[in-house]
Amino acid sequence: MLLPTGLTTPYLLVDLDVLDANVAAMAALADRLGLQLRPHAKTHKCLPVAARQLAAGACGLTVATIAEAEVFAAICDDLFIAYPLWVDEARGRRLQAVAERVRRLAVGLDSAEAARALARHLGPGLDVLVEVDSGHRRSGVVPGEAGRVAAAAARAGLSVRGVFTFPGHAYSPGAMAPAAVGEAVAISRAVDALRAAGLAVEVRSGGSTPSAAATVPEALTELRPGVYVFGDSQQLELGTADLDGIALVAVGTVVSRYADRVILDAGSKVLGADRAPWATGFGTVPAAPRARVIGLSEHHANVHWPDPPALGAQVAVVPNHVCAAVNLADELVVARGGAVVDRWRVAARGANT
Amino acid sequence: MLLPTGLTTPYLLVDLDVLDANVAAMAALADRLGLQLRPHAKTHKCLPVAARQLAAGACGLTVATIAEAEVFAAICDDLFIAYPLWVDEARGRRLQAVAERVRRLAVGLDSAEAARALARHLGPGLDVLVEVDSGHRRSGVVPGEAGRVAAAAARAGLSVRGVFTFPGHAYSPGAMAPAAVGEAVAISRAVDALRAAGLAVEVRSGGSTPSAAATVPEALTELRPGVYVFGDSQQLELGTADLDGIALVAVGTVVSRYADRVILDAGSKVLGADRAPWATGFGTVPAAPRARVIGLSEHHANVHWPDPPALGAQVAVVPNHVCAAVNLADELVVARGGAVVDRWRVAARGANT
Repeated sequence: MLLPTGLTTPYLLVDLDVLDANVAAMAALADRLGLQLRPHAKTHKCLPVAARQLAAGACGLTVATIAEAEVFAAICDDLFIAYPLWVDEARGRRLQAVAERVRRLAVGLDSAEAARALARHLGPGLDVLVEVDSGHRRSGVVPGEAGRVAAAAARAGLSVRGVFTFPGHAYSPGAMAPAAVGEAVAISRAVDALRAAGLAVEVRSGGSTPSAAATVPEALTELRPGVYVFGDSQQLELGTADLDGIALVAVGTVVSRYADRVILDAGSKVLGADRAPWATGFGTVPAAPRARVIGLSEHHANVHWPDPPALGAQVAVVPNHVCAAVNLADELVVARGGAVVDRWRVAARGANT
Repeated sequence: MLLPTGLTTPYLLVDLDVLDANVAAMAALADRLGLQLRPHAKTHKCLPVAARQLAAGACGLTVATIAEAEVFAAICDDLFIAYPLWVDEARGRRLQAVAERVRRLAVGLDSAEAARALARHLGPGLDVLVEVDSGHRRSGVVPGEAGRVAAAAARAGLSVRGVFTFPGHAYSPGAMAPAAVGEAVAISRAVDALRAAGLAVEVRSGGSTPSAAATVPEALTELRPGVYVFGDSQQLELGTADLDGIALVAVGTVVSRYADRVILDAGSKVLGADRAPWATGFGTVPAAPRARVIGLSEHHANVHWPDPPALGAQVAVVPNHVCAAVNLADELVVARGGAVVDRWRVAARGANT
């Protein structure tokens, strides 16, 4: 990626051509699989990126929080909060307000108690999807329990549209295809459980960036990947992106220099501190395949770099986990061929509630 | 810590009484050691916290970036940017503007090149401190090189006031006292190197929260701890804070519940993703010593918890690294005995440039 000159570091840089290619490629994959695409907006948190995804055919957007829904309702009329919300009076009021702004709003749940809390604070007819654990061992019920939870939701007056899962265990080397199979099996069993409870299943939602290409299409109706728009170092190390597909980097300046090591001024407050156990470092340096980000402090990236660049040089680093990096920034600098063409506000930065 | 009721999670909660006790305790320690205290404001990024530190006798503040200096110049007239800045024309203009607002401004450097860049873009007389590596292997020169760098800075027209180090290798179990000794040795050698170059040394600056109590006072003139105002799970696990000294927690809601596990809605976008190799998890749950935060996603804390609390319960989590958590929040909720008394804007959130 060509870097603009003269900008003050650290900052996040988006390559617009690569972003557009990534948006188009995932839309084409979903088409080939015969699935709808509902990208997760928590990755980019930017209205212009969401607009591009929708223009490329996305059926709507996925978000993680009510606060993100409040932001993206401005440009999208079909939102899914893919999270097992616990709704109290204040959250109920906010959800209701979002529901009135959009054509379709669905929320996740994974317990009968959450269904009753939701129904208590919202008018009838709200769309819900039951979350199923397909092997990630985070939230969601085991597939066989999905019928019981869905029936409780229907009894509470909610409109049960289907089931969803996040195959997050795909985030490990070699785990992508097995995770996609686990996703298909879990969703299919959950569908059986809902049907056994007398409920129709319209939506079967899954997907993640690393598992997307291995999706078992018969099992799903829609995909919810997020990271693919930018790519990140995790995807590089999983083999699900290559450097040409990286649309976002952090740009830092060499502030200290040693024989085989430099310090860049882009630390964990810019790159994020995520590091999976299998990651080889805290990011990737496209300009130097042998460079390794061996440590991050808040304002220092400690980079082992044989024959390092000069003091004052600007260097791009691909963050390990791009969702975390974007959520630390107020804006993204947008360039095409190294020329700045725009700045995008990270409108949903910090939208955690 | 008593939690207020009825607030929407996730949010960061400060216990004002504990905060005040922490501020007073570090001021008393510095007094006992006969050292000045220049707290690092990157931890709290809040003007009201800085004001309390100054009222308790701090000689000034430490910051990490020019952007933080721009924020804290509003209430503090003696600032030190403890970072090896690489100054170009834009940064030079901003530094000059800060210098004109305060009584005293010092910046760090660790190379002759950085000294010349600084002098090129700023008027003469700017105060600088040479950064020395005391064992953390991040930025800073080896002590014996400090004289050469200081002499280059003086030749460039900068006013060399002394030396500084960050004993960050104190962040490991059992490493606090050895790191403090390493700090003292490195600073003393660097002072010798400056004197050999014919330069006077007015400031010998060091300190970190974990190493503060083990400081060799003869070696230093000032301490720059940051984390102590709030404490965090790292300090708990290092044994340098106890639960009664924790002044900041993230509050989350139980959104999913299993036999021995819950999901809280405070994930890595609230707690931060920092995890040292020696940390037992991603945070500490004060209400349940046996609970362990075994995983963080962006909006999920995955907590192993025998006999877990009910769905909808609000639970406090002590972040691993409080500086990272604060930098993710727009405001801190401030309480005394569980009653909300204030909300503080995180004025320097994202102030990375």
